[in-house]
Amino acid sequence: MSQLRKDPILSRWVIIASERGHRPSDFRAEVDPPQASRGCPFCYGNEDKTPPEIYAVRPPDTEPDGPGWLVRVVPNRYPALSVEGEVDRRGLGMFDFMNGVGAHEVIIESPDHHMNLCDARPEHIELILRTYIARVKDLRRDLRLRYIIIFRNYGKVAGASLAHPHSQLIATAIVPRLPKEKLEAARSHYLSKERCIFCDLIRQEQALGDRVVMETRGFIVLSPFAARFPFELVIFPLRHCHDFVLMEEGEVSELAEVLKEALWRLREALNNPPYNYILHTAPSTHPRPGRPEYWGTLALDYHWHIEIVPRLTKVAGFEWGTGFYINPVAPEEATKFLREVR
Amino acid sequence: MSQLRKDPILSRWVIIASERGHRPSDFRAEVDPPQASRGCPFCYGNEDKTPPEIYAVRPPDTEPDGPGWLVRVVPNRYPALSVEGEVDRRGLGMFDFMNGVGAHEVIIESPDHHMNLCDARPEHIELILRTYIARVKDLRRDLRLRYIIIFRNYGKVAGASLAHPHSQLIATAIVPRLPKEKLEAARSHYLSKERCIFCDLIRQEQALGDRVVMETRGFIVLSPFAARFPFELVIFPLRHCHDFVLMEEGEVSELAEVLKEALWRLREALNNPPYNYILHTAPSTHPRPGRPEYWGTLALDYHWHIEIVPRLTKVAGFEWGTGFYINPVAPEEATKFLREVR
Repeated sequence: MSQLRKDPILSRWVIIASERGHRPSDFRAEVDPPQASRGCPFCYGNEDKTPPEIYAVRPPDTEPDGPGWLVRVVPNRYPALSVEGEVDRRGLGMFDFMNGVGAHEVIIESPDHHMNLCDARPEHIELILRTYIARVKDLRRDLRLRYIIIFRNYGKVAGASLAHPHSQLIATAIVPRLPKEKLEAARSHYLSKERCIFCDLIRQEQALGDRVVMETRGFIVLSPFAARFPFELVIFPLRHCHDFVLMEEGEVSELAEVLKEALWRLREALNNPPYNYILHTAPSTHPRPGRPEYWGTLALDYHWHIEIVPRLTKVAGFEWGTGFYINPVAPEEATKFLREVR
Repeated sequence: MSQLRKDPILSRWVIIASERGHRPSDFRAEVDPPQASRGCPFCYGNEDKTPPEIYAVRPPDTEPDGPGWLVRVVPNRYPALSVEGEVDRRGLGMFDFMNGVGAHEVIIESPDHHMNLCDARPEHIELILRTYIARVKDLRRDLRLRYIIIFRNYGKVAGASLAHPHSQLIATAIVPRLPKEKLEAARSHYLSKERCIFCDLIRQEQALGDRVVMETRGFIVLSPFAARFPFELVIFPLRHCHDFVLMEEGEVSELAEVLKEALWRLREALNNPPYNYILHTAPSTHPRPGRPEYWGTLALDYHWHIEIVPRLTKVAGFEWGTGFYINPVAPEEATKFLREVR
């Protein structure tokens, strides 16, 4: 019989239906055909095909918006949100509006059009992570922006319109729904226990062991107990810390290794599947004079993490209508399968 | 500049980014290649390829599990939930489990493998709707089941694995996340205003007018103010009623006409797009002796509706990570475009 499980943070039920006749090895992805690099706006020599760069990791003897960079950040050419203007919250009867103020940036992760992130050198992945940190720190100075999310869409099915390796950053003037629910759950747990809900979860998973895909000195990679999707993973730092940008020196390079290995295990086990990864960190804590910031006061209860979601199943009417997901692979089976990859 | 809008029921923000360079006419779908009917388990003569029928609309001189039926309901061959067994709620530390008790049925809507629902005769659509009602009424007698959802996946992209026209029903021992939030929003509005939140919403949309795709004597079809997806629609009965099965005689046939026209407008405007539709109705209100049922007490505040979601855009990392959607077509533009279909 299938099983219903409730996510201990989000109180979201999922159906783990591992008996629908699938084995973990059935979930091998169809691979995107390779996309030619000719004309790619993210390759060397085409820097003028993107808006001017905001940030880059490049040797001091190279020019902005010219080749030579290792990681490059540019505004999204078709931004969902724009940097100029006032937020201007307003209402009309039951309806609430505000202007689409925010930032929408593209982090071009490498000049190599064909780089697969899980084959990159850890030192290069570290540069990408340091770029994330630099961009978040810079955007946090903008008092209009409350929440910053960084995500990576890999493969067409996962929403990547360009094959050249890149991540995206979106900064918004609101705290979106899911981070808000996680923050509120963390606050409510803290108020009743004076402990971090994520630290409690990690400790229980360490004690049980059957959903731990890997663990290093500073990080743990789990198949979540109530995973919505097959082979979903989450990377937590073991040290309680609400904010990704507060990682210590050695932690960034360790995270680069851990992220590489998690992605490599998915690639090997599932035939290079499309995936999304999402970096979840605390909202901005602006010292707003005379106006204590509600979300800022919650930030310290958070525990940053990276969610990795391979896109192997289709989301249909049932999921859209209920927010209730059917996962055909038990997280314990996924863990075993991913652990065995050599 | 794009706009942020908040759904007045779910308090969910969306980004309406109609300036990303798309016009409504850019969203024409790619059509699935027609699937041969040979070997289709839902066609006449193949009734033995499904589990035995639970319910059928068929002339009195025909045999169960033989041809002659007009609408036929069978258990899903790969059910996500099963009818036997106890719910057996249990915990392990922070984790909550229960058995996957429930029902998972397939409503085969017609013997015609190639029927497009928007071309069917309204009298036939009425038979399908009456089948939904009959199945919900029957399953409500099972005291373990709290919530019943009926949905239709049309087209591969929308999750339909078989092309033969069908809908599905899932009954669960919990009230899932989204219906729960809608019920709680309706209750909280009722407590402060003594009015139905959905009735208030409908009245405001009627007054504003620019998101009303069509209106009949008893029903209204709206592009929701904070639609997550381009060309998303919702059908509301104008008469306040919490439960779909309480439709009056003439209302069922009127709904058949309205559903047909809404689907027809999407087909004509968007080149026969894949879509999901989802019927949202109140949870079961069991008279549980000595144990007043929490969800049952909320049911009367509800206002049933049908959500129609064309699947024209991909959901990527940003949406999975935040629950925050980017809709590239303003609902007012979608309304105009759908109204103009002739």
